[in-house]
Amino acid sequence: MQRLSVDEARDRLSDALDAGADREVARLVPLLPSHDVERLLPELDARRLGVLFRAMGDEWLASVVSELDPGIAARLLVRLTDVQAADVLEEMPPDEAADVVGELREEAREEVLAEMEREEAADIRELLEYPPETAGGRMTPEFAALRDSMTVDDALQFLRRAGKAADAVFYLYVTDDGGRLAGVTTLRDLVLSPGSRLVAEITKREVVSVQDSDDQEHAARVLRESGFLAVPVLGPDRRMLGLITADDVAEVIEEEASEDIERLGGSQPLEEPYLTASLWHLFRKRILWLLVLFAAHAYTGNVLQHYQGEVAVVVALVVFIPLLIGTGGNTGSQVVTTLVRAIAVGEVQMRDIFRVFTRELVVGSMLALAMGIVAFVRALTLGVGPGIAEVVALTAFCIVTWSALVASVLPLLLKRVGLDPAVASGPFIATVVDGTGLVIYFSIAKVLLGI
Amino acid sequence: MQRLSVDEARDRLSDALDAGADREVARLVPLLPSHDVERLLPELDARRLGVLFRAMGDEWLASVVSELDPGIAARLLVRLTDVQAADVLEEMPPDEAADVVGELREEAREEVLAEMEREEAADIRELLEYPPETAGGRMTPEFAALRDSMTVDDALQFLRRAGKAADAVFYLYVTDDGGRLAGVTTLRDLVLSPGSRLVAEITKREVVSVQDSDDQEHAARVLRESGFLAVPVLGPDRRMLGLITADDVAEVIEEEASEDIERLGGSQPLEEPYLTASLWHLFRKRILWLLVLFAAHAYTGNVLQHYQGEVAVVVALVVFIPLLIGTGGNTGSQVVTTLVRAIAVGEVQMRDIFRVFTRELVVGSMLALAMGIVAFVRALTLGVGPGIAEVVALTAFCIVTWSALVASVLPLLLKRVGLDPAVASGPFIATVVDGTGLVIYFSIAKVLLGI
Repeated sequence: MQRLSVDEARDRLSDALDAGADREVARLVPLLPSHDVERLLPELDARRLGVLFRAMGDEWLASVVSELDPGIAARLLVRLTDVQAADVLEEMPPDEAADVVGELREEAREEVLAEMEREEAADIRELLEYPPETAGGRMTPEFAALRDSMTVDDALQFLRRAGKAADAVFYLYVTDDGGRLAGVTTLRDLVLSPGSRLVAEITKREVVSVQDSDDQEHAARVLRESGFLAVPVLGPDRRMLGLITADDVAEVIEEEASEDIERLGGSQPLEEPYLTASLWHLFRKRILWLLVLFAAHAYTGNVLQHYQGEVAVVVALVVFIPLLIGTGGNTGSQVVTTLVRAIAVGEVQMRDIFRVFTRELVVGSMLALAMGIVAFVRALTLGVGPGIAEVVALTAFCIVTWSALVASVLPLLLKRVGLDPAVASGPFIATVVDGTGLVIYFSIAKVLLGI
Repeated sequence: MQRLSVDEARDRLSDALDAGADREVARLVPLLPSHDVERLLPELDARRLGVLFRAMGDEWLASVVSELDPGIAARLLVRLTDVQAADVLEEMPPDEAADVVGELREEAREEVLAEMEREEAADIRELLEYPPETAGGRMTPEFAALRDSMTVDDALQFLRRAGKAADAVFYLYVTDDGGRLAGVTTLRDLVLSPGSRLVAEITKREVVSVQDSDDQEHAARVLRESGFLAVPVLGPDRRMLGLITADDVAEVIEEEASEDIERLGGSQPLEEPYLTASLWHLFRKRILWLLVLFAAHAYTGNVLQHYQGEVAVVVALVVFIPLLIGTGGNTGSQVVTTLVRAIAVGEVQMRDIFRVFTRELVVGSMLALAMGIVAFVRALTLGVGPGIAEVVALTAFCIVTWSALVASVLPLLLKRVGLDPAVASGPFIATVVDGTGLVIYFSIAKVLLGI
């Protein structure tokens, strides 16, 4: 059989799904990159999806669905029969399955859960109690817990029986009769110890853990700093509820970075992938900040109206307005994004505010000096004469310094009052410094030009 | 002993380090949050650092140094004796140790490597051959490889001997005589199988892997999509060289997100943490883009000079310049940041360019309509009369649509020509649309007002 290109495979797969040709589907799907499959899936109708399910099986479908956004995965599952959907959910890690079930409507949710194995449905119900952004909402409740009193042989026997529930175990947690976390050991230590030894003897008592109600970002940071591949999630009274693993952390970091990036760009974060989000969703996430920024920016009109007399006298001043306020906005944008990120990764904290301010004062002045010189040269090349060129140069210096200073304190102040520092977006800081920049410009012009 | 607050502990630790009081240091350090310790460390001189080393030991110091930026860690190591530095490096994961050694000057590097155990020094030398942003530069070369012909008992025996080298093993890789990857099994399967069974029988032959020369971002994505906790890194001829683990992935994702965020804010990414980067470093990373944007923005001066006649006739037009071009910039910033992120996480690819364009055309028009209405109202409240208000409203509509469209294609086009899409930053797009926005504004004004 000749080797198919990805494009050919994609076309043929489409035909095979239409024709219900299971075996052809099973041959073609592995030829496509996983991203292609993830994008194809949400577009299939119930009949084609049924063909794919028959051809590839529930385990394969579960692995693809796990990669989808939960909202999209939910819309896909309702196109399967309840039994098929339950099979797929059973094959998924419970934390991800819970995210998807959480997106289903109440009735659909109950119908699917009713078709699932009792124990797995119970896991999902429990996870659904937690807000999705908490450690509890992110954890997988599947773990095998040992007891201090077991021997190494007992423990191995126990793990053998636990079977699938102990699927990805490397760390083995030890709990007491009340299910409270009592220590941790590793599969490796178990394997390398004599069979008659007690678990208690190979157990470490200090365990890095998080609370079920902790923010997922906090949990991710704890795991990152611990250098381990998993941390246990504890409920009240140190009862062990589940695990957060390093791959959850990668997901959390990616999600949180995406949110910060969209906020820094001046919109509310999307809750769905860009290409599949509805146009109305995109509109809603953008219009709020556009209006807020417009309202905040509107006072530039008042500022300019106030200086209309000066503008009429020296029309040439107008020529430099966009350039000067643009440069101020650019400086501010550089500073806020750097700081918002430094705060997000924990490099900068509230108590550094004075240090940040003095650093930005120095760096801002250096940048201001450079930009002042450049602005002076630019003004001369536009042939405005040395008087106005001096005004432009001095304004550039003042605006750049001023922007850097405002931007240096804004993110930490926002955090202080309980807001997300990323609200201090590029567009936000530009809006703040545009109006004040105009006041600086015309004040300098009035003094130096005597108008 | 009464419970100390963090602030008290910090103060006392400082005194204890001055006094060389090892035991007091050993008591106080665990009371501080890890971030505090990471920030304290780079500030210590050689004598205090020596006290800390004696008090806490090489293993503790290694765990802290692993969390530091490699450049800072290197500057810290040179303040230890070569023997101490070698001890610390030996306790670190080899990939992280290599990053730090890579930051040392040539002579210092050789002196420290000479003090290390031969094998561990060799690992580091090998890793130093790879650019740090590749899978090879990121991998840990410590892994235990089994053979198909081993029995389960042989394999367990082998792992016991391998000792520390098999520290965090969960997956066990199987290689052939040439060191080529032949399959994968798990410690769990090994433990749960009868001792006389052959490793070959419990080995899976399809293994998700990456090449040593692959970009670390690609490797991170492969591991993320596989859902595993580690992937093997292969050299030419499928020879297995090392492992990339899920905690490496979290680090890569965090680093790459930081770079994108700083680029999107309009500066070059910092290579060191914000608070410890030199002021000169901060200056250098910002000045380039400020100058480029200034140069690109400078033509707004020419545009305004061109329309100086119109401005002189209708001075009121000036009042709306910052507001209109600011709104255009904000829209553009929203679109580019959303798209740059969607491209970075693989949601949007080159072949989606037409789809993205049409989505932004529709959403952009919706936003433009809303902003046009708002701009009309704002113009009237400034008392400019309906003629100018109509110009302002129509301009707002056109600028918002125009910005959305430019921003919709720019990131993908940049990627197409081999540049980082994040170069299409908020400030960049604002610069592009400011000048064109002014042309739109005055063109509309000339037609509607007949000037």
